Amino acid sequence: MLRVAIAGLGTVGAAVVRQLRANADSIALRTGRPVALTAVSARNKNRSRDCDLSGIEWVDDPCALAERADVDVIVELIGGAEGVARQLAEAALSKGKHFVTANKALIAKHGPALAALAEQSGAQMSFEAAVAGGIPVIKALREGLAGDTVDTVYGILNGTCNYILTRMRAEKLPFSVVLADAQKNGYAEADPSSDIDGHDTANKLAILTSLAFGVAPDISAVRVEGIRNITLADIQFADELGCRIKLLGVARKASDGIEQGVRPTLVPQSSPLAAVEGTFNSVLLQGQRVGTITLEGRGAGGDPTGNAVVADLMDIARGTRTFAFGVPAGRLGLLKPGNPRPICYYMRLQVQDRPGVVADVGGIMRDENLSFASLIQRGHSKMDSVPVVITTHEGDAEAMRRAVEKIARLPAVMEYPCLIPIEDDAP
Amino acid sequence: MLRVAIAGLGTVGAAVVRQLRANADSIALRTGRPVALTAVSARNKNRSRDCDLSGIEWVDDPCALAERADVDVIVELIGGAEGVARQLAEAALSKGKHFVTANKALIAKHGPALAALAEQSGAQMSFEAAVAGGIPVIKALREGLAGDTVDTVYGILNGTCNYILTRMRAEKLPFSVVLADAQKNGYAEADPSSDIDGHDTANKLAILTSLAFGVAPDISAVRVEGIRNITLADIQFADELGCRIKLLGVARKASDGIEQGVRPTLVPQSSPLAAVEGTFNSVLLQGQRVGTITLEGRGAGGDPTGNAVVADLMDIARGTRTFAFGVPAGRLGLLKPGNPRPICYYMRLQVQDRPGVVADVGGIMRDENLSFASLIQRGHSKMDSVPVVITTHEGDAEAMRRAVEKIARLPAVMEYPCLIPIEDDAP
Repeated sequence: MLRVAIAGLGTVGAAVVRQLRANADSIALRTGRPVALTAVSARNKNRSRDCDLSGIEWVDDPCALAERADVDVIVELIGGAEGVARQLAEAALSKGKHFVTANKALIAKHGPALAALAEQSGAQMSFEAAVAGGIPVIKALREGLAGDTVDTVYGILNGTCNYILTRMRAEKLPFSVVLADAQKNGYAEADPSSDIDGHDTANKLAILTSLAFGVAPDISAVRVEGIRNITLADIQFADELGCRIKLLGVARKASDGIEQGVRPTLVPQSSPLAAVEGTFNSVLLQGQRVGTITLEGRGAGGDPTGNAVVADLMDIARGTRTFAFGVPAGRLGLLKPGNPRPICYYMRLQVQDRPGVVADVGGIMRDENLSFASLIQRGHSKMDSVPVVITTHEGDAEAMRRAVEKIARLPAVMEYPCLIPIEDDAP
Repeated sequence: MLRVAIAGLGTVGAAVVRQLRANADSIALRTGRPVALTAVSARNKNRSRDCDLSGIEWVDDPCALAERADVDVIVELIGGAEGVARQLAEAALSKGKHFVTANKALIAKHGPALAALAEQSGAQMSFEAAVAGGIPVIKALREGLAGDTVDTVYGILNGTCNYILTRMRAEKLPFSVVLADAQKNGYAEADPSSDIDGHDTANKLAILTSLAFGVAPDISAVRVEGIRNITLADIQFADELGCRIKLLGVARKASDGIEQGVRPTLVPQSSPLAAVEGTFNSVLLQGQRVGTITLEGRGAGGDPTGNAVVADLMDIARGTRTFAFGVPAGRLGLLKPGNPRPICYYMRLQVQDRPGVVADVGGIMRDENLSFASLIQRGHSKMDSVPVVITTHEGDAEAMRRAVEKIARLPAVMEYPCLIPIEDDAP
């Protein structure tokens, strides 16, 4: 029998309890071994939860779970890179107890140290639930593509942002209105910053980067930009250009290292990512041999994420042992941040409608060796400013940054330009 | 060290040899154990192959590989449900040698018996490469969704058919012209029947059904229809209806058993399957907890399929052991074929253009309790027949079959009607 303790009983924890109970027979049949819940711990014992805790011991101090002789695996669903979650992970793994978590911040920050502890004590550490909820993307990278050489990993990794961008486009609503509504109906947190400013995506991306390229996750090497500054106008101009705006996490082998970025991005409507709407997630893995593999599904929610936790538990019950990041912790390389490769850009300017503005912008771009792919100017007004949207051919990121700074200083340019990269490498 | 022998050195075999050599260090690092090729066997020793066989012993009789003390795993890439492939599988597994194969016909027909042999001798049998080439769909079902209850598995499982249907639509060419060209450029076999008549898809579907529902694969329970009778007109009418025609394999839990079908199907352009073009494959898995997961990628080709073989070998090298079909062979249920659920249909009639035809067709449908969703009549001619396309609301499959037979007997109906189901359950 595999004896499991769960620390943290929010929506994911409750879903794990339900699934382990409801499918106990099938789980035992498939792993050759019953998987039983022996103890749980959460902050508030009296809160009503959508799961049956009868016959399971309640423990007030989650870290005490690591001390119990009747526990083989600890499932950590508390969250946070430090504090109780980290203490529990260290206590469990140093005692040889297997450790399963959905905690992306913990794994992105302390994953290699925890993996080393696991290797020393012979325990398994697994975190399928930490990235893309119900989509088995960790398994696909760690095992399915283990024999290949991965060049690129990218995708839509945050359901809240994708939900907001989807509704802005479908209902022609501004960001602030959709965000407020998403908070009201539970699709966004009261403090939405972790999602909409891209940090959640960055944690997940750092973990995928580690698995894909055999380096330690390095969240500080991720260039992060969220969706706060995306306007309805940008979404509508993108539409006109045959594109959708998505918040992408992108990790790519560059000539000088590994480029990691989280940023709003224009993707062509023909790209599989363009069709990923609402709270769905999608990840593209590009291997030298296997080509492009796309995995899509529910990126959050109790049941999908709980299923990922149960899958990890079943692997442990079967006796499957893998290195947490695909390679031994001591062999994880140091991530060398690479420069972004040349890429096409979308730039929206708010300008006074007077002759010569486009010539001025064009001159700046020419001096930086950047070229126009298209230009849209909407409306006409002597008094007010009008939007001008420019797309570029592939250009150097640094040159583009310099150009934007110079363009921002032109007297006829009324706001700081909005610059969004365009990704166009559909399989 | 894990010592591997390969039987069959076509495009997939050569790709496996190349990958094991090129990535030997990374494979050893990731599995904790070198994976080395010790022997190979193929029909023609003198054929030039795109791989380096130096230092690897050549064995004329593939079955002799099972006798060798210096071989731990046998990779079977010969093909066919009987003959050498089956003998080799039985010889290897009864001697406790692990067995990895890309042979869908063998697994669909003899899989459970071979899995029982593997369990008796303590060997692992794996066949990721047998379904959907480079896409890790077997792993996703056997491990990722192992704790969930799967309701539906469906997808595009044959690259040749999808390539033909894609080109017919894109280039407005009839089936026969595209098939001939596909044969010329290697996308279709000289004898294309296994692909275009749906048998290849049926084998793959039977394997997925087994993994999804815990039953023995039963190819005889798959209703199979290929793409030979799909005309350019059907593709263009589908387009007009906002749909694409795809050859789908569908396995679905019905109230009375499990429905398995392979058939050309109209899928709405908004469905993720509609965007899967050319030789790509895509599989949708619907679990009660995890929701819909879509996996897309290259469904064939030496390198993608070879990568799936190498991933199986790496799992074995790590010591991972799973039941070949997810549950012990002795616990695989017997598949009870279920009746298709009510579904919408597309029907194309070739009729004489005279009053009353639609009324006659409508009467037959009314008597079978079937109702029109739309009707398209194109052109107008006193002399020739004209096409009439009808789509229906959800109707019973048996009733629809009876209606088609009666409609075929109407004097004004000039050809046997073309009937294609419409699948509309995008996630």
